[in-house]
Amino acid sequence: MIYTIDILGTIAFAISGTLIALEKRMDLFGVLIIASVTAVGGGAIRDVIIGNTPISCLKDVSYTYTIISSSILTIVFKSKINYLRKSLFLFDTIGIGLYTLIGIEKAIEVNLHPIIAIAIGTISASFGGVIRDILCNEIPVIFRKEIYATACILGGISYFILSFYNLDRMLIFIISGSIIITARLIAVKFKISLPSLYKS
Amino acid sequence: MIYTIDILGTIAFAISGTLIALEKRMDLFGVLIIASVTAVGGGAIRDVIIGNTPISCLKDVSYTYTIISSSILTIVFKSKINYLRKSLFLFDTIGIGLYTLIGIEKAIEVNLHPIIAIAIGTISASFGGVIRDILCNEIPVIFRKEIYATACILGGISYFILSFYNLDRMLIFIISGSIIITARLIAVKFKISLPSLYKS
Amino acid sequence: MIYTIDILGTIAFAISGTLIALEKRMDLFGVLIIASVTAVGGGAIRDVIIGNTPISCLKDVSYTYTIISSSILTIVFKSKINYLRKSLFLFDTIGIGLYTLIGIEKAIEVNLHPIIAIAIGTISASFGGVIRDILCNEIPVIFRKEIYATACILGGISYFILSFYNLDRMLIFIISGSIIITARLIAVKFKISLPSLYKS
Repeated sequence: MIYTIDILGTIAFAISGTLIALEKRMDLFGVLIIASVTAVGGGAIRDVIIGNTPISCLKDVSYTYTIISSSILTIVFKSKINYLRKSLFLFDTIGIGLYTLIGIEKAIEVNLHPIIAIAIGTISASFGGVIRDILCNEIPVIFRKEIYATACILGGISYFILSFYNLDRMLIFIISGSIIITARLIAVKFKISLPSLYKS
Repeated sequence: MIYTIDILGTIAFAISGTLIALEKRMDLFGVLIIASVTAVGGGAIRDVIIGNTPISCLKDVSYTYTIISSSILTIVFKSKINYLRKSLFLFDTIGIGLYTLIGIEKAIEVNLHPIIAIAIGTISASFGGVIRDILCNEIPVIFRKEIYATACILGGISYFILSFYNLDRMLIFIISGSIIITARLIAVKFKISLPSLYKS
Repeated sequence: MIYTIDILGTIAFAISGTLIALEKRMDLFGVLIIASVTAVGGGAIRDVIIGNTPISCLKDVSYTYTIISSSILTIVFKSKINYLRKSLFLFDTIGIGLYTLIGIEKAIEVNLHPIIAIAIGTISASFGGVIRDILCNEIPVIFRKEIYATACILGGISYFILSFYNLDRMLIFIISGSIIITARLIAVKFKISLPSLYKS
């Protein structure tokens, strides 16, 4: 089940990367690169800084197939993609929940402190978008208009609280994943975001 | 011979980085950094993601000497560099061929899938330029106007086809390297590039 | 004592990152990320390229506490921060000296050539600011208006000269650290910087 969620998240991330690259008038090569970094960039940074190499996305070629096919289908059916908007948003949100938790577990495996582990989980879920924005020469959108980092952090905290009570791993995953997903859905529905700290 | 090609490629990459940094009105330190990342950045990303650390360019100080001297000579003889344009383009193209194949072999050494290996070869050859463009605050030129990624991918495919027939390693290197070089020379001569996917 | 200097340097770097992120109208999450990369980004690149993983800043959670509290205090007392300008500049300069020397020693530990070690020391001290500027969509200021790279390089060279005479490690640290600090203070006082290589 985790694998299915992972692939659905990869599809959602790859499609979002493709759409942004198309807006920037990139060619096929550029689009595929942007789709790839959006999909696997967060996990890549996580693996590189904790020393988990070769990084995970290189070890399983199905990510490559998923990204290339999602990206090409998006290019071909670009005008129709709007119909999938809601499903994609859902996949994206579920993906974020999963990547946060996987990031936290990988950090725990190398004996890092819970606070560091939550930071690494958040990085895993959000830095694909950061690299995408940098390659597109934009200030990362997540730094200006908080979209989901707070949700990841909330989920991360619940992960550690639940672990403290020695609950079953799958149960912890489901509860803290649901917290991340719910927090983000609520934030988007009610247009809640962190305030800009700029005072003019 | 491979070592000579490697150094010639490094010179060509360092000079191209220097010229772009000069246009951006950087000082000596900035110019040297841009020259270095252009020359060794692709291989650095390759080594970091496959876990080959300390990364290769740190292990052999001759790259540093080559980059610093190429860069300083370019600054001093800037007005004359145009006479070398054709040779530099040739070194650059041969370098790309070599870096692609070295990248593929390093990926195979850590047991990665052929498709992943070709991606890593292409990254080795092209991401020096990507980092250069990001540090210069530009959208990477390679994402908009395909220059050589397709050539790298063609060469990578031939590498694996030839390996399948158990040919001699040096022969495989020469044939697939020549394919990369020829593909790029033809593309530049006839101004072939991937079409932008943007439809206005 | 080294640990104290390290923390003071981290505070100075985190505050400088926070101030720049505030100018870019980022939200709290963006500000914390920029503060963190400014403070630990140089050391992170150093650790990643020499293969020292998990990277050091993940292993000691006190950096995280230091960065978060420095950043939040800066946000709250933003209008008062100007009174600390001189102390911050001093902490920053001392931090640069320390990070250069620590970078050099980590490079020596993995048997890298002195010239490479000096380059890694300089990267440790200066690339936090480079990543900060890239995330803020600016050409890194250090590439245009040399602030301290030359000081780091001078200090690195003295480190190796002194090591050649087998002096005590702490003495070498103090002398070459002082050279870096003095060189930077003089450069700033007399507004010395590398000339732009651009000729219009």
